[in-house]
Amino acid sequence: MSELVQEKVAQAIQILQEKGVDLWLTFVRETMLTPDPILPLIFGEGDLTWHSALLLSRTGERIAIVGHYEAEAVQRLGSYTEVIPYHQGISEVLRERIAALDPHRIAINTSLNDPLADGLTHGMYRQLLDILADTPYATRLTSSEEIIHALVGRKTVGELARIRAAIEVTEEIFIETFNFLCPGQSEQEIARFMQQRAAARNLELAWSATNCPAVNAGPDSPVGHSGPTELCIQRGQILHIDFGVRKAGFCSDLQRVVYFLAEGETQPPPEVRHGFEVVVEAIQKAARAMKPGVLGYEVDAIARSTVTQAGYPEYMYGTGHQLGRRAHDGGGILAPLWERYGDSPKKPLEIGQVYTLEPGLMLPGRGYIGLEEDVVVTAEGAEFLSRPQTELICL
Amino acid sequence: MSELVQEKVAQAIQILQEKGVDLWLTFVRETMLTPDPILPLIFGEGDLTWHSALLLSRTGERIAIVGHYEAEAVQRLGSYTEVIPYHQGISEVLRERIAALDPHRIAINTSLNDPLADGLTHGMYRQLLDILADTPYATRLTSSEEIIHALVGRKTVGELARIRAAIEVTEEIFIETFNFLCPGQSEQEIARFMQQRAAARNLELAWSATNCPAVNAGPDSPVGHSGPTELCIQRGQILHIDFGVRKAGFCSDLQRVVYFLAEGETQPPPEVRHGFEVVVEAIQKAARAMKPGVLGYEVDAIARSTVTQAGYPEYMYGTGHQLGRRAHDGGGILAPLWERYGDSPKKPLEIGQVYTLEPGLMLPGRGYIGLEEDVVVTAEGAEFLSRPQTELICL
Repeated sequence: MSELVQEKVAQAIQILQEKGVDLWLTFVRETMLTPDPILPLIFGEGDLTWHSALLLSRTGERIAIVGHYEAEAVQRLGSYTEVIPYHQGISEVLRERIAALDPHRIAINTSLNDPLADGLTHGMYRQLLDILADTPYATRLTSSEEIIHALVGRKTVGELARIRAAIEVTEEIFIETFNFLCPGQSEQEIARFMQQRAAARNLELAWSATNCPAVNAGPDSPVGHSGPTELCIQRGQILHIDFGVRKAGFCSDLQRVVYFLAEGETQPPPEVRHGFEVVVEAIQKAARAMKPGVLGYEVDAIARSTVTQAGYPEYMYGTGHQLGRRAHDGGGILAPLWERYGDSPKKPLEIGQVYTLEPGLMLPGRGYIGLEEDVVVTAEGAEFLSRPQTELICL
Repeated sequence: MSELVQEKVAQAIQILQEKGVDLWLTFVRETMLTPDPILPLIFGEGDLTWHSALLLSRTGERIAIVGHYEAEAVQRLGSYTEVIPYHQGISEVLRERIAALDPHRIAINTSLNDPLADGLTHGMYRQLLDILADTPYATRLTSSEEIIHALVGRKTVGELARIRAAIEVTEEIFIETFNFLCPGQSEQEIARFMQQRAAARNLELAWSATNCPAVNAGPDSPVGHSGPTELCIQRGQILHIDFGVRKAGFCSDLQRVVYFLAEGETQPPPEVRHGFEVVVEAIQKAARAMKPGVLGYEVDAIARSTVTQAGYPEYMYGTGHQLGRRAHDGGGILAPLWERYGDSPKKPLEIGQVYTLEPGLMLPGRGYIGLEEDVVVTAEGAEFLSRPQTELICL
């Protein structure tokens, strides 16, 4: 992973230059307890225990100030050209190094909108203000949100290759699952099978095992992030699965639906076929609208209106989120302008960003039809990283 | 785990009564990205994605306000008697529920001293102030630090049993390791062996795999949290290992030392024996001083002065930390009054707290002698949870 960290640190310095920010300060402690979500990109998988500061400057400085007993490990990472150990407290050395750089704008990891850029705890923020008291720098703090959005969003070639690999193995597990499925199986039984298929490949799950996969058997299953229940899938019902894995540090996130033919049926009833086609169309239309510069809520509206104009109720969540090291990778989001999404839906799409597209609708008496595909934004538009489900699987 | 959560939620309400705090508010979002370290105790292992509020009151209310699609999962946990789902934003319903409780003191998870009580990000703090603007409650906020210290520190019988089990299996792995060791093995080789023994038992490591175990072969190995190197252990040198596992959610943390007899030696040279005895004595003296009400820095000073008065250099870290769900479990610490430890060393020991005791000293030309034992504070004093190493193992 250390080559990826070095790539991202170099990319961060370019982004500081582009955004006109002089210094980016990541200030953390006991990252096993309170991890800053940006650390895997600019530091790696290890922990920082005592108060630690990572300083990246637009002029190319890469300075790490860390507890003395962790300095050796940080030095060995090779991403920071200057590693400064301290013994009793970080205040003095941190204040000195910032003064030496004399930055006009200092980005810190605080954000109203995006948890990925909100790794600084309130307690650490207050300590930083104390450290910078009586210096001009306390008033020069700004949010690192735009730096982090650019850094997380713009996947390098190496990052994209890893995401593709995670998606590919997820599609394999889905195929194994389709071959395993029978009427009468419970949601929990199906979930266990998929988790075993992931474990057999030494893969982590992309999110909490309690609801990865989420499995919805028929119309009585609560849709959302609740875990699988003992409900059993019946003929004449829709089975919906939301699943992802983490492979080599990067995630997939896919939803698939299967219809269990009722006795005597040779194809799904018209309302099931129609609902499925509407969700497929919502994804295809949204993908065609995705170009660099288009805003997230514009893409959301296209998928959303495809569902509502077909007469279905509006789904009460965003059409898609970014995907990368985490299943929910923050930054711009394809979502409506609701309070809970803050400004995130107003961000323009950028080349290299990977998004999910996951509209859905509930079909009374049948079940939930939700599909989720993963796409990357290119100069020409969205490119599917997953093989989109365009045919309803019937068992 | 859900019985443990229910026990801890009930304990938290008792602690609110004891401390005279009306309401404890845990305010989080996307806990996969920015986890609040107190969530495993009062919520469990699942994630909360949208803005979510857990409210515990001294009058016994247990209210969870969560995104609608996670409400079912939270309800099923059984720890919160009222689960309130919302669709577009949390502000209104959170403000209303706080107003209905009309608390005089509202504890939030922010702390200068303790990362365990500092789970609230600065961005979420600003949002909370916005939500409470134009109410009397914005000025009634206080730190949950003392609540969290009591809650995390005071292990229940069930928690203690799990810690004992984690320590026991760690001691087994140490014994297997002692049988495996030979001169010429590298630090990395020894670390791999121990990790394999943990993996064979389906155990997680207590901290990052990059330095769990930490292995120091002889005097040239960098001591601290740097990972094992390719240095090989030689006859006439000391091997030092710092290792812990997580079993059923609870951690162990132990250090052991082994001396490799030089050609012709039948026992370690006097300076090695003496250094070892000083470290053993520092632990025993500190343990004897541990009683409820004694302050952390007082215990630290006893171990520390045992080492320095014997003529060795002072170790530049705290003598011990709490242990539980995490290897560094926060709250009171056995450490000197250095800036980096804040007020944590000034806390009194309480019944049920589990501490490590881990003094150490570097012996030039031989290596690092560091031992670490785990003890629980009882009404009568410290009880060892580990079987203390009091004999220097010679190979």
